[in-house]
Amino acid sequence: MKFSDLKIGAKFESVIIVTTENVIDFARISGDNNPLHIDDEYSQKSIFKGRIVHGMLIGSFFSKAIASDLPGPGSIYLQQTMNFLKPIYHNSTIKIVIEVKELKPEKNIVYLNTTCWIGIAQVVEGSAIVKCLE
Amino acid sequence: MKFSDLKIGAKFESVIIVTTENVIDFARISGDNNPLHIDDEYSQKSIFKGRIVHGMLIGSFFSKAIASDLPGPGSIYLQQTMNFLKPIYHNSTIKIVIEVKELKPEKNIVYLNTTCWIGIAQVVEGSAIVKCLE
Repeated sequence: MKFSDLKIGAKFESVIIVTTENVIDFARISGDNNPLHIDDEYSQKSIFKGRIVHGMLIGSFFSKAIASDLPGPGSIYLQQTMNFLKPIYHNSTIKIVIEVKELKPEKNIVYLNTTCWIGIAQVVEGSAIVKCLE
Repeated sequence: MKFSDLKIGAKFESVIIVTTENVIDFARISGDNNPLHIDDEYSQKSIFKGRIVHGMLIGSFFSKAIASDLPGPGSIYLQQTMNFLKPIYHNSTIKIVIEVKELKPEKNIVYLNTTCWIGIAQVVEGSAIVKCLE
């Protein structure tokens, strides 16, 4: 979307099932083999009582939604902040929400809220700053 | 590392070559197929004049370094902030640096600086908050 077509309050939502395969793939690529994410026995004995998804995999879904959908192609990522509020277990159905919060027309800068939900529970909150190439 | 063994100023560094294969793998897993990252012809015509690495792939390397090295196993990720300062091109040699900035003993909370460098140029700056399980 071109910068001039963006409006404050514009929203993109995406529902994703985060599978064990997604998590194992992410562990391989990042090198983050934290047993809380990939070792069922270890994670069952932890405070989480089960394998949880890497927070940064959710960050990757924010990156995807920004690059593909809102603002979409031509977006340059300048900043991302994330607070990981609650654990996300393997095979959870999550909803990624990107919302335009503020626009700075002098430099085509977009401020976004980036959040992740399971049902009505917010599991990740955050924000991003993006520059639109056009 | 146990919380009680951490010291302010403790540092972990890791040198990584970010290959085209890494970027293509990350695009597949995240779904972020922004042509700036994967399309050579498109990116050559862009302001970057070449294919650049996903910012969130660098975030994944921070996640890995935190989970594996500093503080290491038993770390729970609470927050990550990243500012993407300069483009990182495919096959760049980067240095990831994690440094302990502050410790909150009452809840085993660690504040970290998380930065990424190419030579003496800082390409990503950021910070993380982590809780140690022990």
